[in-house]
Amino acid sequence: MKYAGEAHSLKVEKVLFQGKSDYQNVMVFQSSTYGKVLVLDGVIQLTERDECAYQEMITHLPLCSIPNPKKVLVIGGGDGGVLREVSRHSSVEQIDICEIDKMVVDVSKQYFPDVAVGYDDPRVKLHIGDGVAFLKAVPEGTYDAIIVDSSDPIGPAQELFEKPFFESVAKALRQGGVVCTQAESIWLHMHIIEDIVANCRQIFKGSVNYAWTTVPTYPRHILITFPSPCDKLLLSYLIVSPPPPIFSLGVIGFMLCSTEGPLVDFKHPVNPIDKDECCCKSKRPLKFYNSEIHSAAFCLPSFAKKVIESKP
Amino acid sequence: MKYAGEAHSLKVEKVLFQGKSDYQNVMVFQSSTYGKVLVLDGVIQLTERDECAYQEMITHLPLCSIPNPKKVLVIGGGDGGVLREVSRHSSVEQIDICEIDKMVVDVSKQYFPDVAVGYDDPRVKLHIGDGVAFLKAVPEGTYDAIIVDSSDPIGPAQELFEKPFFESVAKALRQGGVVCTQAESIWLHMHIIEDIVANCRQIFKGSVNYAWTTVPTYPRHILITFPSPCDKLLLSYLIVSPPPPIFSLGVIGFMLCSTEGPLVDFKHPVNPIDKDECCCKSKRPLKFYNSEIHSAAFCLPSFAKKVIESKP
Repeated sequence: MKYAGEAHSLKVEKVLFQGKSDYQNVMVFQSSTYGKVLVLDGVIQLTERDECAYQEMITHLPLCSIPNPKKVLVIGGGDGGVLREVSRHSSVEQIDICEIDKMVVDVSKQYFPDVAVGYDDPRVKLHIGDGVAFLKAVPEGTYDAIIVDSSDPIGPAQELFEKPFFESVAKALRQGGVVCTQAESIWLHMHIIEDIVANCRQIFKGSVNYAWTTVPTYPRHILITFPSPCDKLLLSYLIVSPPPPIFSLGVIGFMLCSTEGPLVDFKHPVNPIDKDECCCKSKRPLKFYNSEIHSAAFCLPSFAKKVIESKP
Repeated sequence: MKYAGEAHSLKVEKVLFQGKSDYQNVMVFQSSTYGKVLVLDGVIQLTERDECAYQEMITHLPLCSIPNPKKVLVIGGGDGGVLREVSRHSSVEQIDICEIDKMVVDVSKQYFPDVAVGYDDPRVKLHIGDGVAFLKAVPEGTYDAIIVDSSDPIGPAQELFEKPFFESVAKALRQGGVVCTQAESIWLHMHIIEDIVANCRQIFKGSVNYAWTTVPTYPRHILITFPSPCDKLLLSYLIVSPPPPIFSLGVIGFMLCSTEGPLVDFKHPVNPIDKDECCCKSKRPLKFYNSEIHSAAFCLPSFAKKVIESKP
């Protein structure tokens, strides 16, 4: 076998945490080549190795597209990675986060200090609760930017991809404010993406764009366990493998929309991240994001472009 | 399970072909969601669903970067997919292909007619043999473009990534001619990519660039089989899963280099593919490639940019 020399490097080295919150099963394990891995209800949420791509892109695509963002809301993102990225922006004065599951926050602080470091920023205010309800209570026009770091739109997070939620988001944004929301993979979910784009076009009267990037461990894999007698033999192989029918497609997309008001040209960032900002406050430099990759993220393969641009 | 509704769609529906050539084991199976799949020595080479990304990018990145390519050599690529893409270019007069394994050609013609359709072009001349030896016999300055559609640089194809081979390529190219060669994944193989870049910088005196794209089933997965008693239960699950330690990273890269002579600016294609050309001769339209995605392919994540641009 071509890669036989590396044959043991991906197995689950050690399960570090297993717990059950009011909302889900939470698990952390140590892998060899992807560092520590956070798993919620059997679905990989982040790995230390590739979390940079997702966190940096979902944050800086919106925040670098508007001048001087001041008030930012994060919905979901309890691990703190998006907060870490938001806090690179010195113009920001207020960072609210609404995460439903406190166990995710606590586990991240304990096992992923380089991700949860986002909580150390004094501008951050954590609200434990339901994002949909939180948004409804937000006074109109409050935020410059809202980042929705949700799980997939199949299952519990479904309403985060539907019109009433987008309407609440639009209301909570100032004129010309921006939202960035996780929006699945063009290789597998074009039918879902079509619907999201159509919904967004109806709600957001500024610009509506689809961007994408590469994250090796996305779409988030699902754990498989087998009944014995194969259980023990296989768990270490399967725990990091995609189950049928989910190939690890390795790409994730984002919807980037703005409300009526000053037009936002997402493809040409007006608020580049300064190199000094990237490294300040003992945070690591940016690993993935840069202005070139920002613009490139909006270039779609022909098959996706055709579908997305044809939406009314 | 979140995706339970699709739970059977990736299993191996039927093994269509199994054979052993002088060089490797060749297998074709029918999958549900990725169409037919070609496997060589246990490594997935192409699937009907996503072959477009790889074939279109490895071909049009070089051919759209120079005006009027006339003579093109393909090394490897026995399935015919790269030929299909080359033949979209009406300026091309001669398409040579050197593939070592005739069984790959025959199997592709039988099971992947939409890929092997490339062989129908009368400009194509097939040479069965070793690419390295073929290149050595080529008169200096023969080709405008050479496309190396090889397997990975670990194992038998290793010499296709080393200096002597690149020297032969450079010699076989005209002044200002271009080469495009499969160059692994930035998520996993930065150490290999560093070496390839360093080698190319020494050999190719024009420009040397790294580009990348998304292909869900790359890097090519390796089949796993288990001894009984789990064998039958698991084969259908595992056959399309990445084994340890290879995550399906979903991206593949290309080295794009030019020889001394008229400078080639790969990032700004001078020879865009005309829409009419895309659809002529009853070939399907381009699914993946367009001029925007061409330029975007050269925008690298910061971690890769740093390494690649720092190479002498």
